[in-house]
Amino acid sequence: MNGEERKGLSSQSPDEAEDKEKDQRTVTVNPSHMGKAFKVMNELRSKRLLCDVVIVAEAIEMEAHRVVLAACSPYFCAMFTGDMTERKAKKIEIKDVDGQTLSKLIDYIYTAEIEVTEENVQVLLPAASLLQLMDVRQNCCDFLQSQLHPTNCLGIRAFADVHTCTELLQQANAYAEQHFPEVMLGEEFLNLSLDQVCSLISSDKLTVSSEEKVFEAVISWINYEKESRLEHMAELMEHVRLPLLPRDYLVQTVEEEALIKNNNTCKDFLIEAMKYHLLPLDQRQLIKNPRTKPRTPVSLPKVS
Amino acid sequence: MNGEERKGLSSQSPDEAEDKEKDQRTVTVNPSHMGKAFKVMNELRSKRLLCDVVIVAEAIEMEAHRVVLAACSPYFCAMFTGDMTERKAKKIEIKDVDGQTLSKLIDYIYTAEIEVTEENVQVLLPAASLLQLMDVRQNCCDFLQSQLHPTNCLGIRAFADVHTCTELLQQANAYAEQHFPEVMLGEEFLNLSLDQVCSLISSDKLTVSSEEKVFEAVISWINYEKESRLEHMAELMEHVRLPLLPRDYLVQTVEEEALIKNNNTCKDFLIEAMKYHLLPLDQRQLIKNPRTKPRTPVSLPKVS
Repeated sequence: MNGEERKGLSSQSPDEAEDKEKDQRTVTVNPSHMGKAFKVMNELRSKRLLCDVVIVAEAIEMEAHRVVLAACSPYFCAMFTGDMTERKAKKIEIKDVDGQTLSKLIDYIYTAEIEVTEENVQVLLPAASLLQLMDVRQNCCDFLQSQLHPTNCLGIRAFADVHTCTELLQQANAYAEQHFPEVMLGEEFLNLSLDQVCSLISSDKLTVSSEEKVFEAVISWINYEKESRLEHMAELMEHVRLPLLPRDYLVQTVEEEALIKNNNTCKDFLIEAMKYHLLPLDQRQLIKNPRTKPRTPVSLPKVS
Repeated sequence: MNGEERKGLSSQSPDEAEDKEKDQRTVTVNPSHMGKAFKVMNELRSKRLLCDVVIVAEAIEMEAHRVVLAACSPYFCAMFTGDMTERKAKKIEIKDVDGQTLSKLIDYIYTAEIEVTEENVQVLLPAASLLQLMDVRQNCCDFLQSQLHPTNCLGIRAFADVHTCTELLQQANAYAEQHFPEVMLGEEFLNLSLDQVCSLISSDKLTVSSEEKVFEAVISWINYEKESRLEHMAELMEHVRLPLLPRDYLVQTVEEEALIKNNNTCKDFLIEAMKYHLLPLDQRQLIKNPRTKPRTPVSLPKVS
């Protein structure tokens, strides 16, 4: 096309054209461009074309493109562009991740798709953390959150703690507190450590219809491994709010419990609770300690 | 996490878990994954990290990643994965594209963004065609379509024809037909070739209030370069539907026109038209030839 024809595209006089030019600038974004490109990159990978690195985990070897791995994973980016010895290596072994999981994560890098299942979530999350695939890590957390149940919330809480998944940790913890009457019946509860039990039952947010549940939980936990746990009775009872128990339960059940009778400190807690019940209402309010403070679960409004 | 804890994530009995497993499979697509990845790839490019090819056009050299270019451009894909000599070359020169345009297209590959302007569209479209960036090519066509005007539609039509933009060609052609009374006044029309004028004025879809416009267009076109075009008078008049002209215009204007008077074949067309007017209506319908057929513009319903 010659100059004359080029000029012909403008239907305005030169001055008008100049004024209008800014308005007519059309920056177009093609929304399907990147999706199509990744599809081709994945095809190139499956045909082993233009690959420049082999990723190895266990017995599985996967060819891939450094720039794609680096673009999606800060871990690979640091490896390929930093001062690490792997920078120029043709073959790179990833330890601490099994082959199948690494294969899934490299598939993810090329497809943006990940299948999170009950079976893989617990190996996927740490592997995604290692490769700094934060979206996958979040997908795993979301999946675990959706799976929260009285029988698994303490396990998920511990898992979240180990892998520093702050939000999931809070969610699992809140779930355990809100479903304490069911949670305390499960094996996960009975297998908690002393500190974990103390932390749980000392929470103001524990949702229980009556403090009886907390007392029963302590007795169950001790009895589950009585010999070794007996010595912790006093430490635990410190967090059971005996003064808040119904008078009948205090006299008939707590007082009768051998674990209480045989422990000097526990007897002090019993006496404290009995005294609380024997005082007139106006004087009860003067006894301020953690055991006389009503719990304030999230689902119930606090009545002061 | 040990096996026992892993089992703890499932809140169902083994059988229930198996049944439910299929339902709980959650394939997650992270919609921002590819956009973020391309952003990093573009950053790597600007830092010249992990680049494995240099693209050269005129004096401009651009480092890039083969796999990214290949994923977005079938042209580069063929170059890097086929049997071409460029396959292994570190530096690749692209001819027929200016440096600035190639730079814009490589930016596009990494960003999915392209700015189409009046100034660049005519170099951008052929360059995008060369690199087989079909989305950009389409963006250019869309831009040109939005710019269609009586003063430029014939230029755009010719441009579309040269670059085999079928849809744009049809749109520009229809636009020229629909705006013929203005189009015929412009320089683009006067600069058309004989074949192009014939093609345009022979179209049934030409939108004219009266066939006078077509006659005037032919006379203008001839007079614009009278000496060389005079010989084409008969070829053009073959497509002017003189029988459809008003009786007065035929007698006073056409008959008086020197270009008609001095051409034997044109006189035959004039006689044909006069005869048509002199016949009773019922006999006119018996004269069937292209010049007695009313035009049927798209915007007007055909009345038979």
